[in-house]
Amino acid sequence: MNASQEDNYSWVLKSINNFQLEKRPRPHPKPNEVVIAIKATGICGSDVHYWVDGRIGDFVVEKELVLGHESAGIIDEIGENVKNLKVGDAVVIEPGAPCYVCSYCRKGNYNLCPDMKFPATPPIDGTLCKYYCCSEDLCIKLPENFPPGIEGGALIEPLSVGIHACNQAGLRAGQSVIIFGAGPVGLLTAAVAKASGAIKVTVVDINQSRLDFAKGYAATDVILAEKVTAGDNVIDHCKRFAKSLLEAGKERSDVVLECSGAESSIITGIYMTRPGGTYVQVGMGSDVVALPITHIGIQEITIRGCFRYSNAHRQAVQMVAAGLIDLKPLVTHKYEFQEAIQAFQTVRDQKDGVIKALILGD
Amino acid sequence: MNASQEDNYSWVLKSINNFQLEKRPRPHPKPNEVVIAIKATGICGSDVHYWVDGRIGDFVVEKELVLGHESAGIIDEIGENVKNLKVGDAVVIEPGAPCYVCSYCRKGNYNLCPDMKFPATPPIDGTLCKYYCCSEDLCIKLPENFPPGIEGGALIEPLSVGIHACNQAGLRAGQSVIIFGAGPVGLLTAAVAKASGAIKVTVVDINQSRLDFAKGYAATDVILAEKVTAGDNVIDHCKRFAKSLLEAGKERSDVVLECSGAESSIITGIYMTRPGGTYVQVGMGSDVVALPITHIGIQEITIRGCFRYSNAHRQAVQMVAAGLIDLKPLVTHKYEFQEAIQAFQTVRDQKDGVIKALILGD
Amino acid sequence: MNASQEDNYSWVLKSINNFQLEKRPRPHPKPNEVVIAIKATGICGSDVHYWVDGRIGDFVVEKELVLGHESAGIIDEIGENVKNLKVGDAVVIEPGAPCYVCSYCRKGNYNLCPDMKFPATPPIDGTLCKYYCCSEDLCIKLPENFPPGIEGGALIEPLSVGIHACNQAGLRAGQSVIIFGAGPVGLLTAAVAKASGAIKVTVVDINQSRLDFAKGYAATDVILAEKVTAGDNVIDHCKRFAKSLLEAGKERSDVVLECSGAESSIITGIYMTRPGGTYVQVGMGSDVVALPITHIGIQEITIRGCFRYSNAHRQAVQMVAAGLIDLKPLVTHKYEFQEAIQAFQTVRDQKDGVIKALILGD
Amino acid sequence: MNASQEDNYSWVLKSINNFQLEKRPRPHPKPNEVVIAIKATGICGSDVHYWVDGRIGDFVVEKELVLGHESAGIIDEIGENVKNLKVGDAVVIEPGAPCYVCSYCRKGNYNLCPDMKFPATPPIDGTLCKYYCCSEDLCIKLPENFPPGIEGGALIEPLSVGIHACNQAGLRAGQSVIIFGAGPVGLLTAAVAKASGAIKVTVVDINQSRLDFAKGYAATDVILAEKVTAGDNVIDHCKRFAKSLLEAGKERSDVVLECSGAESSIITGIYMTRPGGTYVQVGMGSDVVALPITHIGIQEITIRGCFRYSNAHRQAVQMVAAGLIDLKPLVTHKYEFQEAIQAFQTVRDQKDGVIKALILGD
Repeated sequence: MNASQEDNYSWVLKSINNFQLEKRPRPHPKPNEVVIAIKATGICGSDVHYWVDGRIGDFVVEKELVLGHESAGIIDEIGENVKNLKVGDAVVIEPGAPCYVCSYCRKGNYNLCPDMKFPATPPIDGTLCKYYCCSEDLCIKLPENFPPGIEGGALIEPLSVGIHACNQAGLRAGQSVIIFGAGPVGLLTAAVAKASGAIKVTVVDINQSRLDFAKGYAATDVILAEKVTAGDNVIDHCKRFAKSLLEAGKERSDVVLECSGAESSIITGIYMTRPGGTYVQVGMGSDVVALPITHIGIQEITIRGCFRYSNAHRQAVQMVAAGLIDLKPLVTHKYEFQEAIQAFQTVRDQKDGVIKALILGD
Repeated sequence: MNASQEDNYSWVLKSINNFQLEKRPRPHPKPNEVVIAIKATGICGSDVHYWVDGRIGDFVVEKELVLGHESAGIIDEIGENVKNLKVGDAVVIEPGAPCYVCSYCRKGNYNLCPDMKFPATPPIDGTLCKYYCCSEDLCIKLPENFPPGIEGGALIEPLSVGIHACNQAGLRAGQSVIIFGAGPVGLLTAAVAKASGAIKVTVVDINQSRLDFAKGYAATDVILAEKVTAGDNVIDHCKRFAKSLLEAGKERSDVVLECSGAESSIITGIYMTRPGGTYVQVGMGSDVVALPITHIGIQEITIRGCFRYSNAHRQAVQMVAAGLIDLKPLVTHKYEFQEAIQAFQTVRDQKDGVIKALILGD
Repeated sequence: MNASQEDNYSWVLKSINNFQLEKRPRPHPKPNEVVIAIKATGICGSDVHYWVDGRIGDFVVEKELVLGHESAGIIDEIGENVKNLKVGDAVVIEPGAPCYVCSYCRKGNYNLCPDMKFPATPPIDGTLCKYYCCSEDLCIKLPENFPPGIEGGALIEPLSVGIHACNQAGLRAGQSVIIFGAGPVGLLTAAVAKASGAIKVTVVDINQSRLDFAKGYAATDVILAEKVTAGDNVIDHCKRFAKSLLEAGKERSDVVLECSGAESSIITGIYMTRPGGTYVQVGMGSDVVALPITHIGIQEITIRGCFRYSNAHRQAVQMVAAGLIDLKPLVTHKYEFQEAIQAFQTVRDQKDGVIKALILGD
Repeated sequence: MNASQEDNYSWVLKSINNFQLEKRPRPHPKPNEVVIAIKATGICGSDVHYWVDGRIGDFVVEKELVLGHESAGIIDEIGENVKNLKVGDAVVIEPGAPCYVCSYCRKGNYNLCPDMKFPATPPIDGTLCKYYCCSEDLCIKLPENFPPGIEGGALIEPLSVGIHACNQAGLRAGQSVIIFGAGPVGLLTAAVAKASGAIKVTVVDINQSRLDFAKGYAATDVILAEKVTAGDNVIDHCKRFAKSLLEAGKERSDVVLECSGAESSIITGIYMTRPGGTYVQVGMGSDVVALPITHIGIQEITIRGCFRYSNAHRQAVQMVAAGLIDLKPLVTHKYEFQEAIQAFQTVRDQKDGVIKALILGD
């Protein structure tokens, strides 16, 4: 593409299933802002959902929207008062821009900020463009010799989800962990748990090839979940399945991190949490699920929600830089900037054992 | 009753609805044990359940069982090695005897001890007798001039439930609290919340006279809950009810303590918890409830179970002794030892605005 | 004073002991800012220190400085984008303006922000003026019928110090507390502890009349401290004093809040913390103190620093509004705006049993 | 030694520097107890102190004392009611026997139990004998194929010190850690920190060869500390040293674990703790140290004591079994049971680069 420095080619969702490359004017930074030349963007399940369905729950795409929010790039221009970055720095973008001043922001829980502006969540444009402009403080500089390179930087965002999940669990060294769902978030959560000193990291999925991948990555143990038979009572199914696991020598776990959102995983996950243990709902799927509330009560199980992240990106970069987490094996597919639609198709159809597909910079 | 010192008259549940006063031999203390002459015993909902239904969930009365576990009395005899108590001391009994050595006990969460021996939970005999024998360490000595007297000591056990509930919530001064259920546990939980510096203590119930009592006791605000119409979807009902409360100027709360166990209270309670807030399941009722798990997830709500208590009785005694909690208003009925059946009937039928009925000592 | 709306009379420290009323131009708000007509300002020990000594530790007054940072007032003008305030609203000012974006700010610990701009800490001008301009988010609106009125609002800042001290201690209902120092901060800290459900709030001071005040205010017990004899070893003195207290039936405490900064209070405070308990250093005084580090180690005492506050002002307003803390008794002296120097003299000389002196608005 | 099954050869400290092998009667287990045939015992600095000085602080050897408390062995006999162990099981001993029923024990902080009976702390006999008898619950069964074998089991006790130190610090993945002191406890603490996901583990010592060992073991970085020049002010020295480290690009750390007890390490350690960070006093040495209390206050540093451990041994075994911590490199010396005195001499004189010396079983 012979784009001028002032063209900002962007991938815009015009309507359902209609994703187009569009020439937009290049942004210029206001004070405290920087413009980043995007070099790699990971595709998230939510990007595909907006493309295919035009919505996720209450978030509806009502006007055209640039997708993408898992990005890394190179600082291309800096605004006034920018203190810690210079042109040429490689950075990872923390996508959400909170208001900074509400009580959630002031207390450090800015992921709950009601005025959060989150790219690729309607109506805020995403990062799948040539030049992206944001506040300096949303950029984390990658250290020299960052092991997975700037492309690996695009995985810092989903890794931050894993870090936040483990933070919500209060995960500490010496605990046992079970993770439901072996997609990118489940795998990265497993990697965080492993790096945090978990003595056992068991990954559960209904897909054996994903489990094989998990076993070679961060899992110490894997469990193939049984699908619920049509017509079966889900709670009964899950209770039986959990019981069969215990009989087979598996143990309830200090921490359960549910990264699939599937009803049967949610319920089985709760039954596989030890008395006094913590279950974290990371995945999104079923809106309403029948839960064994008396069991939760008398076993003093803690169930915690988990929404995006706060204060996780810097830690993510540092843990990868320290060699505690290996991102490279997860990048199974790379596409040129112009090939974004093929990338989306690959993720949508879960082709070729895709874990994480990256779209490179323009 | 002209009982000799060696007779231990005890109220024994022989079978469903068959509760009899029986003469048993007086126990004598082994090393580290004491015998307490019971002076007051509160009736708990669980006592009535065993009497009426013969079971609570998985706990089934399979052989005859002395009921009662909310008791205070006077040390009548001490065993070898007893260090901190002497004959004549007024004490409150912490009923559950844990194993002390399992990982739950060693970590301070002895309420989760799988070998817990809990009086009036089958098959362990309760405290509704003349002489009760237990380990010295399960007795908390009442201070001189304990404001509500030894009879008030019988309310330390349910107060401990309220303390544990607030502990599970991590309740701290300056937080707002909503409590569902204005029975004895709800009211005592409200009293703990108030004494802990909650800026707002809202009590919700479907019974206006209970709310009136709550308002005069520890609540700063009360809400009359709407009953679910037959055929209505409970989640929809609760969502609408929560919405109507917000529109009426009520606010979501930092902490919600659900003390009723009712399905609609559970769901409404979750909707009335603020993002990042904590909901504690104190009451027991519905076994399985359909919960809005996506809402819990993206609002980062924490749901915590709550089972009995650990390390709460001493704190309960100290808070009452310090004048921070007033137990007397809750003792609405007193019965002589021989009148236990009338006492049980009063509680079963919720007669005469009963909050807590005490059975005095033999 | 017949000041025009455009005059901003301000009390300016020109040099040591030279504090003058000066006419400055009235500020006007930038976007997100408000201008507050100051109605009451409390005098803090730090104000007096700057006046008398020109410095506190490393903070040196190098150019002229408006003093004052404990203020409440009425919104007089609002800037663009101000959302939650309107002209005429009564507000309390949280004085420090953090950078919002550093890692401390993002994690909620903005009191540790290295770029904090704190009024009346050189070189940032304070609030002892007619019109003060700051960000909207630094104002907390006082509720209707705020019990101590807008003048009481000037005590919200030192109350926030007490709240932060109790937060640093992790203070919870049912704990025992000892507070060293019965000045305004010590007394307000005692009030927070009391309101938080402390079962015992013991205040220690070397001044009996302050203890008498404390006893009538929030203390449940008071202890007159012995002064260290010249030439005596301070550690030995403190060890003996702590021992004598234990022999006299006092007990080590779950939480010790040291609000005096005096060497002997610091050491005695550590000896009066129970094994596993928490000691918080609230007061500033001695820079270096010889501490019994082996004792701290084997008793697993936690010593925590405490610097200003974060997220405390709103809680302070709510606790006062809820009637949990009474501010009025502490306002022992009020001065007109023109009488600021007399007010400073009263505080400097600790005249007339002064606890907190207020300077009213121009 | 042709000892009969009824002889219990034991190493007894008769008086200072007088350590003798003595034939004592073999113990037999009471209910809930087991007898362990000791197979390996590590020598702790405290053992050497008692041997050389006859005391550590307030603990004085007043009658003869069997030394040793870091032991593993094989169950040789079991008492009545023993549930989880059988003859032939390999176990690690958690040495301290708490009272189980005091408020510290009940809350899980049994290391603070005032009635703790700790072997080789006067007057309780230690484990350096052929047969040692203790409660079943003080034994942790080693899993099959425990990587360092039963001899490695003797290092579980000092590893538990490291685990407890990291627990006291609240250490979490992604934090940076500095450890002062590269002796066995410092090294094991470093290993725990590394396994817990610390992004940086810097070890500081005055001995270069110890640092070389640390660098090859668990440290990611090492710092050679400067000794304090005679006559120099220690605080000034430490302030300068900390400043020079910062100028050389080292950073203050989230967590500092002081494992040496040396005055200059303590003070430097506090200066190397970041604002809001946590410093843990693990080592014992100087009784009283002059500390920069104002610095601690305004930087909100947390200083925590650390005494032995609670609930750490099982986690230690699990982390080693999971391959997260490698114990073998630390076992630099092994001695036969009869050679105990040579072993003690090696440790006393720090001969041959000794890290941990083991005495094997009789």
